[in-house]
Amino acid sequence: MKRALTAVMAALLVSRVLADPAAGNPLPSWSDGKTRQTIIDFVGRVTQPGSPDFVPPAERIATFDNDGTLWAEHPMYTQLAFALDRVKALAPEHPEWKTTQPFKAVLDNDMAALAAAGEKGLLELVMASHAGITTTEFRATVTDWLDKARDPRFKRRYIELTYQPMVELLDYLRANGFKTFIVSGGGVEFMRPVTERLYGVPPEQVVGSSIKTKFDVKDGKPEMIRLPEVDFIDDKAGKPVAINKFIGRRPIAAFGNSAGDREMLQWTGAGSGPRLMMLVLHDDAQREYAYGPANGLPNTPFGTFPQDLMDEARQKGWVVISMKDDWRRVFAFE
Amino acid sequence: MKRALTAVMAALLVSRVLADPAAGNPLPSWSDGKTRQTIIDFVGRVTQPGSPDFVPPAERIATFDNDGTLWAEHPMYTQLAFALDRVKALAPEHPEWKTTQPFKAVLDNDMAALAAAGEKGLLELVMASHAGITTTEFRATVTDWLDKARDPRFKRRYIELTYQPMVELLDYLRANGFKTFIVSGGGVEFMRPVTERLYGVPPEQVVGSSIKTKFDVKDGKPEMIRLPEVDFIDDKAGKPVAINKFIGRRPIAAFGNSAGDREMLQWTGAGSGPRLMMLVLHDDAQREYAYGPANGLPNTPFGTFPQDLMDEARQKGWVVISMKDDWRRVFAFE
Repeated sequence: MKRALTAVMAALLVSRVLADPAAGNPLPSWSDGKTRQTIIDFVGRVTQPGSPDFVPPAERIATFDNDGTLWAEHPMYTQLAFALDRVKALAPEHPEWKTTQPFKAVLDNDMAALAAAGEKGLLELVMASHAGITTTEFRATVTDWLDKARDPRFKRRYIELTYQPMVELLDYLRANGFKTFIVSGGGVEFMRPVTERLYGVPPEQVVGSSIKTKFDVKDGKPEMIRLPEVDFIDDKAGKPVAINKFIGRRPIAAFGNSAGDREMLQWTGAGSGPRLMMLVLHDDAQREYAYGPANGLPNTPFGTFPQDLMDEARQKGWVVISMKDDWRRVFAFE
Repeated sequence: MKRALTAVMAALLVSRVLADPAAGNPLPSWSDGKTRQTIIDFVGRVTQPGSPDFVPPAERIATFDNDGTLWAEHPMYTQLAFALDRVKALAPEHPEWKTTQPFKAVLDNDMAALAAAGEKGLLELVMASHAGITTTEFRATVTDWLDKARDPRFKRRYIELTYQPMVELLDYLRANGFKTFIVSGGGVEFMRPVTERLYGVPPEQVVGSSIKTKFDVKDGKPEMIRLPEVDFIDDKAGKPVAINKFIGRRPIAAFGNSAGDREMLQWTGAGSGPRLMMLVLHDDAQREYAYGPANGLPNTPFGTFPQDLMDEARQKGWVVISMKDDWRRVFAFE
């Protein structure tokens, strides 16, 4: 019996080692150094039974921004590229778009005119490209587009532009009992079709911006129609509000890359006990991009990382991840 | 080695049998009969690998209404009892309530005057008792109240008035790879402090009605303030809308007890593949309550089960659970 028990324990141990990214060499795409070690030390402290910093698994909530944190957001958000393609695809049904802004700008590939249309113009594009169909139809459209559309620089599908170190971080946290959530300014129904596949995050753990939907029964068939009306913008102070509403627990770890993530990190950091707040800095023009004031570079319309966010990070002990120095590899295809 | 492997397999099997409510005698508080068998057959079909009805674990989403489905809602919703007690507790700070409706009605225990104040009056009570404090303070207040407050008939704490057969059903579904969600008209922040303890459902799997919250930084300290403004009513057509927004997948099983659950069951039933839709009928005046038109009894302000819902259930094959006939035991304390 003793031998059998030992065999059981050995078998369990082996299966745990095999299944557990925490064992062996976690975070292989991260450079050895202070940033990687900070993550490993944090996870070690919160998972060590008996440690004063131990956090029960149920409370190990980690939230991740998506654009610029888990996948590339430059030169424009992937969802905006989708909206532009979708407007072009729908144009034959809308002859009036040929002469109406901001649609004319999209059809003419006139980025200056598009920028001039401002936020209001952008919202019109989103509504025209995202609403007026059922949630089922929208999911099919998004999935189809994401399976095919390629980005202009890497000539890769957008879904290949996920950051390998962050994918490993998500895995590593989950292997240590964390529940990982995406909390993004992006549209929730734009992300959900692919988050499980890309990040191992199921749809019910994705929080994002949304337009309103309406339940309707048509010819006896229940449908959910997407309406051209903003429901919720999951950005800035909206992020802690959404975390409270959708998750109902305060995260102990939060990851972002821009001013839109500031309040999420503040809210996470204001809880008691051990905390980990991190910001990805895009400082690698060669392998990805370098942009934004925190790099001494001009501001960009997407993923602004202002100097005062950098100052706040330094003051509060938020860890700034340098893509250039902290990541041995950026994309899986490298 | 072969002996060791056999020992491992035996050990794993034993631990599975011990841990698994599916093994042995599942649903012990359910009477033997067609209703219990329908549940067991459904779970068997969707979990049988190779079966045409097999559903991958990730898609085994089950949603449960709370009031009247998981715990008692008669003679009034538990949350309303909380609101009334809270108004009484706050009354010393509000001398004007002594002469202002609907507060006067509450302080005088004048249920007729309270009913006369209608929905608008009820909303005023909810705002006065649920808003104006931080989410952290509200959680503490709710937890404290739920730990003490007792219902008038059973002289038990409200949290003891959960239905044992439904708690077993939640366990049974989870043991078979389901992810269980609460989708209730009740306030999400009223339920979350106790759902893990009562039902094994963590806060992030609770969807409910909400008032707006505001993220604010006061003296350098981030806070989430509850505002006296309705955010979302998770009832009727709001339920499928919330399911789409919070969960992002269509359930394959849904459980309710009133007209407020109709659209959730319609939405669940309209998906392809195997489905299970059930409604609890309160027809047991002795052990719990009998009320509502579907029992040939007068309507009640809480948990209406109209005749046309019964007709729709019969027509669509939704299973009606008779508390009287299908449950051997209603409460755990019996």
